[in-house]
Amino acid sequence: MIRTLAVKADGTLERDLPLEQLDRADISWYWVDFEAPSEDEAALLHNHFHFHPLAIEDCLHFLQRPKLDLYEGYQFYVLHSLNPDTLKTEELDLFVGDRYVVSFHFSRLNEIDSAWEAVSADAQSIQLGPMQVLYLVMDRIVDQYFPAMYNLEDRINELDDGTNRPHRVITRRLFRIRSDMLALRKTIVPTSEMLYRMLNMDFLKESKRYKLYFTDIYDHLLKLTAMIESNRELTSDMRDHYMSIKTDRMNSIMLTLTVFTVIFMPLTFIAGIYGMNFEYMPELKWRYGYFAVLGLMATVGVSMFIWFKKKGWLE
Amino acid sequence: MIRTLAVKADGTLERDLPLEQLDRADISWYWVDFEAPSEDEAALLHNHFHFHPLAIEDCLHFLQRPKLDLYEGYQFYVLHSLNPDTLKTEELDLFVGDRYVVSFHFSRLNEIDSAWEAVSADAQSIQLGPMQVLYLVMDRIVDQYFPAMYNLEDRINELDDGTNRPHRVITRRLFRIRSDMLALRKTIVPTSEMLYRMLNMDFLKESKRYKLYFTDIYDHLLKLTAMIESNRELTSDMRDHYMSIKTDRMNSIMLTLTVFTVIFMPLTFIAGIYGMNFEYMPELKWRYGYFAVLGLMATVGVSMFIWFKKKGWLE
Amino acid sequence: MIRTLAVKADGTLERDLPLEQLDRADISWYWVDFEAPSEDEAALLHNHFHFHPLAIEDCLHFLQRPKLDLYEGYQFYVLHSLNPDTLKTEELDLFVGDRYVVSFHFSRLNEIDSAWEAVSADAQSIQLGPMQVLYLVMDRIVDQYFPAMYNLEDRINELDDGTNRPHRVITRRLFRIRSDMLALRKTIVPTSEMLYRMLNMDFLKESKRYKLYFTDIYDHLLKLTAMIESNRELTSDMRDHYMSIKTDRMNSIMLTLTVFTVIFMPLTFIAGIYGMNFEYMPELKWRYGYFAVLGLMATVGVSMFIWFKKKGWLE
Amino acid sequence: MIRTLAVKADGTLERDLPLEQLDRADISWYWVDFEAPSEDEAALLHNHFHFHPLAIEDCLHFLQRPKLDLYEGYQFYVLHSLNPDTLKTEELDLFVGDRYVVSFHFSRLNEIDSAWEAVSADAQSIQLGPMQVLYLVMDRIVDQYFPAMYNLEDRINELDDGTNRPHRVITRRLFRIRSDMLALRKTIVPTSEMLYRMLNMDFLKESKRYKLYFTDIYDHLLKLTAMIESNRELTSDMRDHYMSIKTDRMNSIMLTLTVFTVIFMPLTFIAGIYGMNFEYMPELKWRYGYFAVLGLMATVGVSMFIWFKKKGWLE
Amino acid sequence: MIRTLAVKADGTLERDLPLEQLDRADISWYWVDFEAPSEDEAALLHNHFHFHPLAIEDCLHFLQRPKLDLYEGYQFYVLHSLNPDTLKTEELDLFVGDRYVVSFHFSRLNEIDSAWEAVSADAQSIQLGPMQVLYLVMDRIVDQYFPAMYNLEDRINELDDGTNRPHRVITRRLFRIRSDMLALRKTIVPTSEMLYRMLNMDFLKESKRYKLYFTDIYDHLLKLTAMIESNRELTSDMRDHYMSIKTDRMNSIMLTLTVFTVIFMPLTFIAGIYGMNFEYMPELKWRYGYFAVLGLMATVGVSMFIWFKKKGWLE
Ligand SMILES: [Mg+2]
Ligand SMILES: [Mg+2]
Ligand SMILES: [Mg+2]
Ligand SMILES: [Mg+2]
Ligand SMILES: [Mg+2]
Ligand SMILES: [Mg+2]
Ligand SMILES: [Mg+2]
Ligand SMILES: [Mg+2]
Ligand SMILES: [Mg+2]
Ligand SMILES: [Mg+2]
Ligand SMILES: [Mg+2]
Ligand SMILES: [Mg+2]
Ligand SMILES: [Mg+2]
Ligand SMILES: [Mg+2]
Ligand SMILES: [Mg+2]
Ligand SMILES: [Mg+2]
Ligand SMILES: [Mg+2]
Ligand SMILES: [Mg+2]
Ligand SMILES: [Mg+2]
Ligand SMILES: [Mg+2]
Ligand SMILES: [Mg+2]
Ligand SMILES: [Mg+2]
Ligand SMILES: [Mg+2]
Ligand SMILES: [Mg+2]
Ligand SMILES: [Mg+2]
Ligand SMILES: [Mg+2]
Ligand SMILES: [Mg+2]
Ligand SMILES: [Mg+2]
Ligand SMILES: [Mg+2]
Ligand SMILES: [Mg+2]
Ligand SMILES: [Mg+2]
Repeated sequence: MIRTLAVKADGTLERDLPLEQLDRADISWYWVDFEAPSEDEAALLHNHFHFHPLAIEDCLHFLQRPKLDLYEGYQFYVLHSLNPDTLKTEELDLFVGDRYVVSFHFSRLNEIDSAWEAVSADAQSIQLGPMQVLYLVMDRIVDQYFPAMYNLEDRINELDDGTNRPHRVITRRLFRIRSDMLALRKTIVPTSEMLYRMLNMDFLKESKRYKLYFTDIYDHLLKLTAMIESNRELTSDMRDHYMSIKTDRMNSIMLTLTVFTVIFMPLTFIAGIYGMNFEYMPELKWRYGYFAVLGLMATVGVSMFIWFKKKGWLE
Repeated sequence: MIRTLAVKADGTLERDLPLEQLDRADISWYWVDFEAPSEDEAALLHNHFHFHPLAIEDCLHFLQRPKLDLYEGYQFYVLHSLNPDTLKTEELDLFVGDRYVVSFHFSRLNEIDSAWEAVSADAQSIQLGPMQVLYLVMDRIVDQYFPAMYNLEDRINELDDGTNRPHRVITRRLFRIRSDMLALRKTIVPTSEMLYRMLNMDFLKESKRYKLYFTDIYDHLLKLTAMIESNRELTSDMRDHYMSIKTDRMNSIMLTLTVFTVIFMPLTFIAGIYGMNFEYMPELKWRYGYFAVLGLMATVGVSMFIWFKKKGWLE
Repeated sequence: MIRTLAVKADGTLERDLPLEQLDRADISWYWVDFEAPSEDEAALLHNHFHFHPLAIEDCLHFLQRPKLDLYEGYQFYVLHSLNPDTLKTEELDLFVGDRYVVSFHFSRLNEIDSAWEAVSADAQSIQLGPMQVLYLVMDRIVDQYFPAMYNLEDRINELDDGTNRPHRVITRRLFRIRSDMLALRKTIVPTSEMLYRMLNMDFLKESKRYKLYFTDIYDHLLKLTAMIESNRELTSDMRDHYMSIKTDRMNSIMLTLTVFTVIFMPLTFIAGIYGMNFEYMPELKWRYGYFAVLGLMATVGVSMFIWFKKKGWLE
Repeated sequence: MIRTLAVKADGTLERDLPLEQLDRADISWYWVDFEAPSEDEAALLHNHFHFHPLAIEDCLHFLQRPKLDLYEGYQFYVLHSLNPDTLKTEELDLFVGDRYVVSFHFSRLNEIDSAWEAVSADAQSIQLGPMQVLYLVMDRIVDQYFPAMYNLEDRINELDDGTNRPHRVITRRLFRIRSDMLALRKTIVPTSEMLYRMLNMDFLKESKRYKLYFTDIYDHLLKLTAMIESNRELTSDMRDHYMSIKTDRMNSIMLTLTVFTVIFMPLTFIAGIYGMNFEYMPELKWRYGYFAVLGLMATVGVSMFIWFKKKGWLE
Repeated sequence: MIRTLAVKADGTLERDLPLEQLDRADISWYWVDFEAPSEDEAALLHNHFHFHPLAIEDCLHFLQRPKLDLYEGYQFYVLHSLNPDTLKTEELDLFVGDRYVVSFHFSRLNEIDSAWEAVSADAQSIQLGPMQVLYLVMDRIVDQYFPAMYNLEDRINELDDGTNRPHRVITRRLFRIRSDMLALRKTIVPTSEMLYRMLNMDFLKESKRYKLYFTDIYDHLLKLTAMIESNRELTSDMRDHYMSIKTDRMNSIMLTLTVFTVIFMPLTFIAGIYGMNFEYMPELKWRYGYFAVLGLMATVGVSMFIWFKKKGWLE
């Protein structure tokens, strides 16, 4: 689907003009949005707009990381729209020229719809032209990164809420959280590098006004990057912490096993001795042999217990 | 609540003038402090001062990391005031122009109150203007980072004081200390980056005087950053160290278990053999069968003991 | 084997001219490909082309990492062709001058053959000259890195597909995957550094056209580098995760062992006592002695069970 | 205590002049040393020398890391003198102007005494002025870092000398060594950064002569930094290595336990069966029942042994 | 021992001239080699050549890392010659002026001898002067780093050759290999930094010819650095891998122990019960009591077995 928005020199707006009419002299700038374009529509990138084959290739393939390329007469942006629930990313490509914006994406994007409405509704935006559209779209896209990040932080905090979850559940959740943070970082870091590059390029330096707006977006990306790094370290510490708790528990289990074994093994052995059937075992005939052996067993058991006590193994 | 402090050209001071009078010709500069402002008061940032919408947005939302933005005619600072006990941070926003400082914060801050008094009291400061206020506030804010850092170092040293704490307590405390250091770093590192940027920007380069003062604050932040990095490594080493001690202890426990099992299992088995009730077991009839078996048991037990000795398992 | 491709000023093509004729005035540029050259053929690098001895040395030895050297009158490229299945690399050396390309490699390379055909077939390419050949070859070589990378990612995903593989299999596969990623990185990172250097060198800066094409290759290499780093971290997390699961399982095994030992050891000991053969053991004569002891055993067993329950060891 | 050394234009030396006379025209430069100054003496920094309040604050407080500040008319250095045995640091502050050096420290420092003597004794040094004093002091201070570093390396080597120390001793020593290296790094790295900054600053660039001397000190600091980093990695490897040895030992212990248990448990069980007192147990009556059971036990025991052999558990 | 090589303006060579004659007008340049010099010979660095005291100090002491210092009129290089078998390093110091090279080393170095012969033999080299000597020596020294590196890689590959070595052997070898790599890195990284500095310094920039030759050496050092980093990571992965295998093995051992204990403990207990000697134990009188108990034991044993099966503990 293709839709167009043309802003006329007198500040009014015309919708859904055919592409051929967009270059009319009374139109000061226009925005063409390709949403899930058919093959014929996609071909217009080349046939009508004559964009560079490398940029068109980047539109049609899914490989791209967020980036900015400077072509003769227009800038080409690749952005990633993030679904905060699934953490899936959609690629959004933008061609930004002096008098036009062309946006290209394979599925419907809320960020584009919302920016489209904002431009349609706001008389002031209309005057500002393509860079304003770029800002509106990029701002909305980056704003969607925060719920995703907050969602991850909530999942981290939930792990630490005092509930006694089995360790294998915590282990698995930590692993999923860390994998999701890696995925999020793949989007945020290159976008941040792209903004840094924009802010230091000539075309923005001239325009003090836009520098402030894109710096605002860059702030958000810096904050997100710092949050990811910090949470990567925090979850790494949590993992080490839980591993340490497990080792403590293992120590406690082994200690119990050892105390029981060390106390009862000798006792059972003594009982075994007097359970033997030799004809000539003098002790068996003694009047108080049985009680003597019970006393011996008590002595051995208590000695072992004291030995453990002294070793500090019975906290 | 809004309060104002106006410094007149003759070096005297006028308090709590209404905002409208602050632009009087006899006033050389002024400071307006917004403390926990009502919505109407906050609206003055736009209605009276006409600050940039992006800066006002940053004031009203809590997302910001410490940073500096340069707007036309004023600088906009976001600082973090740290509570050294809870390690909670409060955002403080400062607009610094040629003739004014506007400070904005949602709760009462000791650092602001103390700087306010210092400016009121000190005739010399009064002459110096907005940059001096910025220095006084920033110096007080950064000075509060040290008790927080020392507190963390105390908690680290306490862990290592020779007392025999259970490992699970040490494990938990180390984890909390490391999490708190991560939180502290989130404030210190961006503040340090901000100072670095300030020290290399044109407006400071001109003024040799302020460069020295802000370099002094920057020194503190460098020191704090180095302390955090160093303590992160130290606590990481401590964690590894305690894990190593736990493993040693586990080895010791397992060894005890094994020595007892290996010595008594064969003995108990021998006793078991002669506890069997077969009618024809020649040994049972022997005169000294019982003593022979006791001797055999002693031999087996001692052999095992020697074997462990030779293996070096009985330190 | 040596083959040549000469492009004439009139845009036509002549194949397999002898080297001596390639400098004819009607030839605008030419490509000479050395595939698995004999020693005599390799000697032509020096005898006919008079390339620098250091560059020739780099051709003849296998040590080189991907790199670019600038010699008087020509550029010398070392590239690595990767076999996506075996991850083995083949070195490809390219001399790129104003009027010629010389490619040198010890085994047949699909990337060279495919570029050779593309140049032969495409009238437009023919006009473009040596830099176009460099782009065509480099683009094909870097494109081969992706199947290798995807192959590695498939192997990672396969590990996580829910099937219950023995841990020692997962352990071994993770190790192999990580080793292969290290090998891949040895090719990708220096190639990426080489492209970065190319894009910032004077000879490319002049030609806007080639800058875009080589930037496109550089994009791919940046993406690949990010994929490797991200997958190194992911597999590191997976390894930690599996180690954590193993520790959980060990805990579970030890717990089972301990529960059984702690419950049955005292019971077996009691049975041992009343299996002793002392003549005077009053309990043995009691009418309900046997049932009393069975009751005692039940009490001891149940107590131990309750004790474990209270310790939380029986989830 | 304050002492002074004044160098006169004619190359002679005058000692312990009062501060007021040091500005006499016949004195070309002078050195004032504050060693453990009284409060009145420390006040001279402000009252007599009029140093900047921030620099004086740095002298009087202990917080500083090694650093260099440039004030109007003088440089201010903070250095750390290291006690190679205790690894404790003492702060030394130096003010270096065109005609004077002022050194300030709270305890006696060998490095200062030695430099003081060198200047007093060496006619050539006397001609050279304040920068020469700075070099002499800094060189002596950095030279003291080496014995500290060598001492640490000796302690590392000692751990690896073939003696069989208990692991908990090695563990503890490694931890102490690593903590000490962290402490050492806190002094060496900022000093190195300070030298780097000096070598790239204008006042040194002019003087080729001093550049060489301070580069020599910087060399030492680079070497020390590399030694620390290398030894941090080495001790980290050692820790992993010892942990690995412990795990091997644990495996060996568990294996012994398991082999004995698995062999004797079934045997003891068989003995238990024929120890039962049932009236009707046909085997008990058999002529060779006892020997048959002994044979059965031998078979079971040997089978277990073979099973372990085949599993490769009996190296 | 001191030897000299003087190249005359007419392209001929004179050997072993006394130092005093080397400045003769007909000599275009010369090389003086100090091999294991006596104290008197070493004194010539100062007495005859008047080199800077700091450079002479660096010659006479062993502390230096590879580096380059620029003195007035000559460059001073510190290089490390590596013995590929022992990984011991020997320091080699070179003074390179416009008309001379002075090499200084405390033991015989093959690299020096070989370069000496090359210069003596090759008429072309003779024309080229001191920088050519520097190249010849440095090239030979860096070439010796490769056998050392290959040797380490062989030792790594050998660990992974399928032979079943005990883990404690692998553990120890990995540790030694990693320590040796650290030692190697101490030589390679500073040498690489030195080359990088050379290639970006003015004196080389002028001479296109030497830039190519030293770039060739720098290539080798970059390759070596990458090999070390890559092998450090590989061995780190191997260590983790072997640790993981050990844990698997521990799990397997513990499982065996647990299965036997859990199956036989209850059985042995039942046998113990009917081994008690109570006068009134009704079951003992039953005609098929013995067989009933055998059946009970079989049931218990099989139940345990099935329970383990269901838990998935019997792969
Ligand atoms: Mg695309
Ligand atoms: Mg936004
Ligand atoms: Mg903002
Ligand atoms: Mg915003
Ligand atoms: Mg910013
Ligand atoms: Mg960490
Ligand atoms: Mg705010
Ligand atoms: Mg302060
Ligand atoms: Mg200070
Ligand atoms: Mg201060
Ligand atoms: Mg500083
Ligand atoms: Mg560490
Ligand atoms: Mg080659
Ligand atoms: Mg491609
Ligand atoms: Mg592309
Ligand atoms: Mg492409
Ligand atoms: Mg790019
Ligand atoms: Mg990690
Ligand atoms: Mg990693
Ligand atoms: Mg001080
Ligand atoms: Mg020195
Ligand atoms: Mg030196
Ligand atoms: Mg020296
Ligand atoms: Mg140096
Ligand atoms: Mg390491
Ligand atoms: Mg030396
Ligand atoms: Mg070489
Ligand atoms: Mg080469
Ligand atoms: Mg070479
Ligand atoms: Mg290179
Ligand atoms: Mg690793």
